Amino acid sequence: MNAQRGFASDNSATIHPDVLAAIARVNVGHTFGYGHDDYTREVEARVAGTFGADASAFFVFNGTGANVLSLRAACRRFEAVICAETAHLNVDECGAPEAMAGSKLMPVPGVDGKLTPHAVERRIARIGDEHAVQPRVVSISQCTELGTLYSLEETRALADLAHEHGLILHVDGARLSNAAAALEVPLREVAVGVDVLSFGGTKNGLLGAEAVVLLNPELARHFLYIRKQSMQLASKMRFLAAQFDALLSDGLWLRCARHANAMAARLADAVRDVPGVEITRPVETNAVFAALAPEVTASLQRDYPFYVWDEAAGEVRWMCSWDTTEEDVDGFAATVRSALAGAVA
Amino acid sequence: MNAQRGFASDNSATIHPDVLAAIARVNVGHTFGYGHDDYTREVEARVAGTFGADASAFFVFNGTGANVLSLRAACRRFEAVICAETAHLNVDECGAPEAMAGSKLMPVPGVDGKLTPHAVERRIARIGDEHAVQPRVVSISQCTELGTLYSLEETRALADLAHEHGLILHVDGARLSNAAAALEVPLREVAVGVDVLSFGGTKNGLLGAEAVVLLNPELARHFLYIRKQSMQLASKMRFLAAQFDALLSDGLWLRCARHANAMAARLADAVRDVPGVEITRPVETNAVFAALAPEVTASLQRDYPFYVWDEAAGEVRWMCSWDTTEEDVDGFAATVRSALAGAVA
Amino acid sequence: MNAQRGFASDNSATIHPDVLAAIARVNVGHTFGYGHDDYTREVEARVAGTFGADASAFFVFNGTGANVLSLRAACRRFEAVICAETAHLNVDECGAPEAMAGSKLMPVPGVDGKLTPHAVERRIARIGDEHAVQPRVVSISQCTELGTLYSLEETRALADLAHEHGLILHVDGARLSNAAAALEVPLREVAVGVDVLSFGGTKNGLLGAEAVVLLNPELARHFLYIRKQSMQLASKMRFLAAQFDALLSDGLWLRCARHANAMAARLADAVRDVPGVEITRPVETNAVFAALAPEVTASLQRDYPFYVWDEAAGEVRWMCSWDTTEEDVDGFAATVRSALAGAVA
Amino acid sequence: MNAQRGFASDNSATIHPDVLAAIARVNVGHTFGYGHDDYTREVEARVAGTFGADASAFFVFNGTGANVLSLRAACRRFEAVICAETAHLNVDECGAPEAMAGSKLMPVPGVDGKLTPHAVERRIARIGDEHAVQPRVVSISQCTELGTLYSLEETRALADLAHEHGLILHVDGARLSNAAAALEVPLREVAVGVDVLSFGGTKNGLLGAEAVVLLNPELARHFLYIRKQSMQLASKMRFLAAQFDALLSDGLWLRCARHANAMAARLADAVRDVPGVEITRPVETNAVFAALAPEVTASLQRDYPFYVWDEAAGEVRWMCSWDTTEEDVDGFAATVRSALAGAVA
Repeated sequence: MNAQRGFASDNSATIHPDVLAAIARVNVGHTFGYGHDDYTREVEARVAGTFGADASAFFVFNGTGANVLSLRAACRRFEAVICAETAHLNVDECGAPEAMAGSKLMPVPGVDGKLTPHAVERRIARIGDEHAVQPRVVSISQCTELGTLYSLEETRALADLAHEHGLILHVDGARLSNAAAALEVPLREVAVGVDVLSFGGTKNGLLGAEAVVLLNPELARHFLYIRKQSMQLASKMRFLAAQFDALLSDGLWLRCARHANAMAARLADAVRDVPGVEITRPVETNAVFAALAPEVTASLQRDYPFYVWDEAAGEVRWMCSWDTTEEDVDGFAATVRSALAGAVA
Repeated sequence: MNAQRGFASDNSATIHPDVLAAIARVNVGHTFGYGHDDYTREVEARVAGTFGADASAFFVFNGTGANVLSLRAACRRFEAVICAETAHLNVDECGAPEAMAGSKLMPVPGVDGKLTPHAVERRIARIGDEHAVQPRVVSISQCTELGTLYSLEETRALADLAHEHGLILHVDGARLSNAAAALEVPLREVAVGVDVLSFGGTKNGLLGAEAVVLLNPELARHFLYIRKQSMQLASKMRFLAAQFDALLSDGLWLRCARHANAMAARLADAVRDVPGVEITRPVETNAVFAALAPEVTASLQRDYPFYVWDEAAGEVRWMCSWDTTEEDVDGFAATVRSALAGAVA
Repeated sequence: MNAQRGFASDNSATIHPDVLAAIARVNVGHTFGYGHDDYTREVEARVAGTFGADASAFFVFNGTGANVLSLRAACRRFEAVICAETAHLNVDECGAPEAMAGSKLMPVPGVDGKLTPHAVERRIARIGDEHAVQPRVVSISQCTELGTLYSLEETRALADLAHEHGLILHVDGARLSNAAAALEVPLREVAVGVDVLSFGGTKNGLLGAEAVVLLNPELARHFLYIRKQSMQLASKMRFLAAQFDALLSDGLWLRCARHANAMAARLADAVRDVPGVEITRPVETNAVFAALAPEVTASLQRDYPFYVWDEAAGEVRWMCSWDTTEEDVDGFAATVRSALAGAVA
Repeated sequence: MNAQRGFASDNSATIHPDVLAAIARVNVGHTFGYGHDDYTREVEARVAGTFGADASAFFVFNGTGANVLSLRAACRRFEAVICAETAHLNVDECGAPEAMAGSKLMPVPGVDGKLTPHAVERRIARIGDEHAVQPRVVSISQCTELGTLYSLEETRALADLAHEHGLILHVDGARLSNAAAALEVPLREVAVGVDVLSFGGTKNGLLGAEAVVLLNPELARHFLYIRKQSMQLASKMRFLAAQFDALLSDGLWLRCARHANAMAARLADAVRDVPGVEITRPVETNAVFAALAPEVTASLQRDYPFYVWDEAAGEVRWMCSWDTTEEDVDGFAATVRSALAGAVA
């Protein structure tokens, strides 16, 4: 394993040492598997308690799993999910919501990845018409796939809208910690009004673990069966619990998220004024989106892996993570500057 | 985390230190996620090569995932799976084969968990009859859920039978290492004639990782999509790869499996002649099944966790693992003896 | 279309003239489709009222549809269905319960196609164990696929058993009319204790229509969506309604079913004592099962189509229908006698 | 059944007398069910032969069934379907494509219900990327849900585009006859380049029957199982066959479709110049779309049932059918004129 540095994804990052230490710490003795051990129960309660007194939490393997299981908990198969066109659910889960949960998505155009109440309301239609799927879930990503944030007021407005119509609000929180850090509020605040959320850990320093947090107790009734049947029940569960134990200890989630956000801000600041670089989205969390000439992109990718987001628009994504260093950022920014100096010259 | 000892499951065991070390070793630098890194490709190739020149290997999270994805790779939704009534697929996956893969199971009574060619052949019927599901897969567990083994000849016979009828052979190898160790052959030998297998790691010292090995290249064509859509694609894949790297290094898989098998043999030997204990299944790998009076069972469970397998028959399961010690076995055997001395007296 | 006669199936029969007349009668003017017309509503109410004050009825296309939609109304995808191994659900629906409803079946051996409370009770196990599907439905066929009947007491006992455990009772009533006729009770009586039933019409003189009758109002809540999504919503619904209108008028259902039953009894009586013919099942409704030498079977099939039921056992099925005539029966019986005279001589 | 007249849907119409006569004609004698009779085979061959030498045809119950089964024949569950946002598949099948076929739809904005090659091509993206569903089918409606037509050249261009990328072309032909009549070509011409189509009958004078026509023989391989498992296999199949027999005899399909188209043209001509009526879509087949003031719509609906298509836009749909008469049209046009005279005055 070489030690290449890049901005491809917060999934490209390492495991935080505290997390590995927590895994090692519980690596003694025999316990019941599948979460039927006291330690897992305790960490589950701690995660749940982070979000609300009535919440329950279930550990799963990955983000697609957390999202699809959230939908299975909420929807019958004729019930549908309103989400942004850019939602991970819609574009990056290989049709799992449809094929595995059986739920149709109703994607609507968003603004920088965000749903608006107006767009949502237009899709809450044909209620009672058996020919049409019945909207049941409004799903937002917080922060969004484009690195943008819903303000607490915006989340609240969508929650109220959903609830008025008998729908529920799901949050894809693969990067919920980055959102809370950016909003400067506790995790619980980000979840006000939310019925079910995917609380991500893998992108914030864990080895691989996510939690489905069911704030609406109705949704939790059958979740154990749904998780098992959906192939998301870990046998050696204590090692998933340990990762969340670490994440919630000593403010690790916040430290990691804040750092990643700060690195993105630093990067945006460093390149914003470089001629030939256009920052295309508000930089509110740990992602920087920019438009570049294709040949510049190609040249940069030789040194630093990152993804092209929208080939037609020349838009690229630079993702910072808990382990991105100031040296990484400064080195990359220097490379950007010199590439563009070359390009322009 | 206390250090209680027991015989509940090989899932109750710890992670082997070599495995944690391998995870730590690759915990440097940034890599592409989802297996698109050189290290994962190399370990995949190594796992695949262990089984055959045309094989391919894909890491997944857990055993239910490995089994269900194997079925998805092999079956259209009107195609069915012949398996033993006691198969994990049939009784311990909460209906995932049916609900997630869409495949009907055709369970047949087995002998100590094993399918016979005669029983299989009887279910290969109604071919071409559109009212009936069409058998497509014969699935066996090697070793079985009852700790028993198929000889190489028995596997071969089932493979030949399956292939004669245009079916394929799947092996649920959650404990394939235990089987190979007991048969005293390389892993590749256990897979002769097999088209697809679930190669288990979690029960043999890993943190949590399994591999789907597709020996029949036809089955591999769409597997990347199936894995992703089935929510079994890890983002930080290098840490699953590292676990298999360790498992295949220095014969770790064999050492762990052999040890677990030896502990089961030691336990069976130690209690076989105790009045009131009846060993109910051939002890061929790492499980001991026994019949006990219910009050004896209850008393033993106070000191050592283990599962009742068949309440009506008073049958219990004692599972040994890579980290079961001679002290564990001897201490438990002594407890059994003293409990039964009390019970009989 | 020639006018061949046979005993293959009650699906081989014609449409009763009253049914065609009813279709023609409503074939005037424009109506809303999909059942949103007054006539359909009225016939639905009449069908529902036949079974109970709280019942509701929904017309569907065919028997497999009626059964699978009944399961979709009752089961979440981790909930399972206890049925006889010989159930149509289990052996003649090409895996639709599993693939389309997502429900695992738990088949148990029956006696002449009938479930016993004892066998059912044994499968109501592992409640609350997330690794196992959770039994939700007991499904019986009345009359069974083997032409046998549950007495009212037997149905009641199974209903009580199901309800005690929080399960529901489904009846596959593809031939419910034959059962009611044989039991000499109104349809409503056959449904005492039942939560949902598939009320067959196609096998009793209709062109093609079945009704799902939901006696338990809880199950009806979402049925409109389930029917539409399951592709069982007829656009020109009035023509399905008309068929049931005819079926319930002037006792047509009873006359047709009684006649079919009588023809089976006549056939059984006529061949029972023929050497070489063994009646293998109680002849209680409109089917006669018999064991014959294979060459006799082959010879008979040249003149009269019918099905071999169990090739290994030499068991055949002779099905009578509303339009089977005494001449059909007597002619066939004579052929049987002469074939066997030849065979024996 | 009263004899109300209206413009709600071509599903509101009656059965053509020739169709009822054909049903009655085959209503003699006993035949094997499920299409295993010579008559059905012959009619199937005739339907298939209408479209091409290599085509095969399978009768199903309804249009949603025909569409969803077409997708099941073509797609694995990670393969997707590009269709217009207004496609019946997308908006009027209660999520059956997703829940029953497991296929994600990729809806794109159309022009008067029609896909353009440009829009389709943009969605053929991320090929080989396991995170994204893989486009497999381009699905068009001919004629569209908005009554518009693809020219033969337009169909050909979409077919070529699909085939270039290894995709196939599906046609939702619930009103294919209306399209062929309008294009003044044989049915076979409308299907040039098409791989699979839903050939509608119910909206063109049948009681209830549609055909799935598989022009690409690869797609037909498993269709018998798919139809049965999808609950679309009729037991008394001869009565579905008879309907298509009638439809293809004496040019019935063409006469009915031409008449319906002519009635729509007559209606459009009669109201086009009425102040307050705006014809909103090209009137190319049997539908007229118009924009009206809401109070005019409400007033008209008291006398003639029809549907509001887009409430926000005040757009309504007037559908003509095989049994719409000149008197119906003239009477309705007069009512429109008088309603608007009142409204304007």
